[in-house]
Parts: sequence; structure tokens; C-alpha cells
Amino acid sequence: MAHDTTIADGAAALELIQAHIRDVPDFPRPGVLFKDITPLLNHPQAFAAAVAGLVDPFRAGGVDHVVGLEARGFIFGAPAALALDAGFVPARKAGKLPADTLGQAYDLEYGTAVLEIHADAITPGSRVLVLDDVLATGGTGRAAVDLVRRAGGTVVGFSVLMELSALPGREKLSDVELHALLSV
Amino acid sequence: MAHDTTIADGAAALELIQAHIRDVPDFPRPGVLFKDITPLLNHPQAFAAAVAGLVDPFRAGGVDHVVGLEARGFIFGAPAALALDAGFVPARKAGKLPADTLGQAYDLEYGTAVLEIHADAITPGSRVLVLDDVLATGGTGRAAVDLVRRAGGTVVGFSVLMELSALPGREKLSDVELHALLSV
Repeated sequence: MAHDTTIADGAAALELIQAHIRDVPDFPRPGVLFKDITPLLNHPQAFAAAVAGLVDPFRAGGVDHVVGLEARGFIFGAPAALALDAGFVPARKAGKLPADTLGQAYDLEYGTAVLEIHADAITPGSRVLVLDDVLATGGTGRAAVDLVRRAGGTVVGFSVLMELSALPGREKLSDVELHALLSV
Repeated sequence: MAHDTTIADGAAALELIQAHIRDVPDFPRPGVLFKDITPLLNHPQAFAAAVAGLVDPFRAGGVDHVVGLEARGFIFGAPAALALDAGFVPARKAGKLPADTLGQAYDLEYGTAVLEIHADAITPGSRVLVLDDVLATGGTGRAAVDLVRRAGGTVVGFSVLMELSALPGREKLSDVELHALLSV
């Protein structure tokens, strides 16, 4: 009954992950309930289970690069890249990357910001997994997907630990295979 | 001749790492030669060798938490924590962590900044490895070490990929076991 065992293990892993995400009220401002992933990071088994859960659906097809979004996306993206034997590509806020970059603007609550990757980071024709901790409005995720495509990469998926289902992130990424470990 | 083999492997690993760090002139300002680690991150074998090199000296004694410094320290610290079966603790710029924090000021070239960890992140009495990509002036490294000690942890080492030997970082951390994979 290998299949049943896998399902049971997957459920236990998700429970372990969920048990180590804590609610912090009134952050970053009054009335917002913030989903804090730092207890998860601080629990080796839960963190390892989260990384495995983020990458497992994309193992079979092969991944050449994992793009992680600054800053919390680095924490999951780096081990995810190593787990997939893929290169890790940091997508950073404007002005942080030293060499030639591609930039993509995205909307913030007030104003706009620019996400950048190095212009030579994505091998044209390569298979790319974009990864972050949380999918909220989808603004940075959308920018990252667009950057990868402009660089000539194929986006095989967008993988997040948590989808905030009250927000329209999923709609903004309707042309991408979206994988969320948890929906809250 | 297992010992000789290890030495040869270590030298080959260091060569692989060094070959994937590139010099970018005039970043972040004219006259500065920036050591860009993104080609290393994008090469799975070199990245894996770097993570192994950062943690190997601290395996024998055991490590309970790895503290990684925002933002590039997250990229090495997260896989380092998983490799050591330790918890990962992000040390962040002020205002980024949602729960109760401990903060430590440090000097910048102009003015000061504050580094924070969650107040409950370090188990009192635990063994803690602090980790970053580059040791330059040592300001953030010093702040991180002080935070860990204030939280009741024992700093077993400070591990960096690269030490900029022209700068006085090492002096600022003279009371810590400093491990630098490369000195440039």
C-alpha cells in the first residue's frame, strides 16, 4: 500500500508545517493578522518538509533554475534549488544586483517598485521554477514570471508555501502552474 | 590515503567556488570592485560545495540554530541549517520581524542601523552558528553575535564564504571562532 503511505505522510507533513506557522495580530499594521513562518524555519523537520513540499511536484519534469524572491523567498528558494540540483537565481529589489539586470515594475499598495534579475542568470530555453513564501496580491510573483520569460526561460511553475485566498494573487498568475502547499 | 584524498577534494571544491565568483567593477560606487556571488549560486555543484564548506568545521560539536543575516546570508544560512539539522533563524533589518524582537545597533558608513532577531528564536543554552556571505567591516556580524548572546545562546562560530582581508572585520570578531572559506 505504498500509495496510501505516501498520502498519510503528506498529510502528516502538512500538519507539521501548519503547526509551526503562527498568527501575529496587528502586523504590519493594526487589523492585519500576519502569518509568521519563523517558527517553521526554526524547526528542522518542519522546514525540510516545507522545502520538499515546494519542489516535489516539479521534480519529474526537471528544473534548471529556481528563482527566489527577496527576501523570504531566498530562505526557501536556496534549499529548493539544491534539492532539485538546479541553479539558484535571486530576484531582488532595484539596485541590489551588481551586474547588468532586467527589471520589471509592479504595483505596491501605494506606488510601484521594480524587481530585478541579472540579465545573464537564466539560460535561454531553460526550465525555471519561481518560488516564494507567500502568495498575496501576486504583484512580485507576476513580475518574476515576466522577467524569466523576457530572459528566454520557460516558467514550469510558481510554488509557494502559503496562498492567502482572500487576495487575488491566483488570478494574476492564471497563465502559470501555481502550487500552494497551504491555503489560508 | 583517505586524508590526502580529503585535502585534494577540499582544494578542488575551493577552486570550483572561486571560479564562480566574479568581479564587478564600480559597484556599488565608482572605484569599488564588487565580489558577485550570483554565478556561484547559479551553479548547483559550486553552491553545494560552498554550503558544505561553511558548515563542515562545525558538524562535530553540534549546532542547534543557524543565524543567517539579511539578505544574502539567508541564501547560505537556510541550506546550512538544513545540512546541520538545526533551526534557521533570520536576523533582519529593523521592523521586518512580526513578533517581539531583540535589537542591536551597528555602524554604517554614514549613520547606524539596527539588526533584529525574534526574542524567542534562540533556545537559552543552545549552540549557535552565525553565517553570512561576506565579512567586510564586521558591523552586522558583531551585532548578530551580541544578539545571540543576549538571547542566552552560545556562539560556536561565525562562518563566511569570503573575508575581505583589507577590512577590519576579523578584529571586530576576535572573541568568536571565525571561519572564512576564502580570503580576498
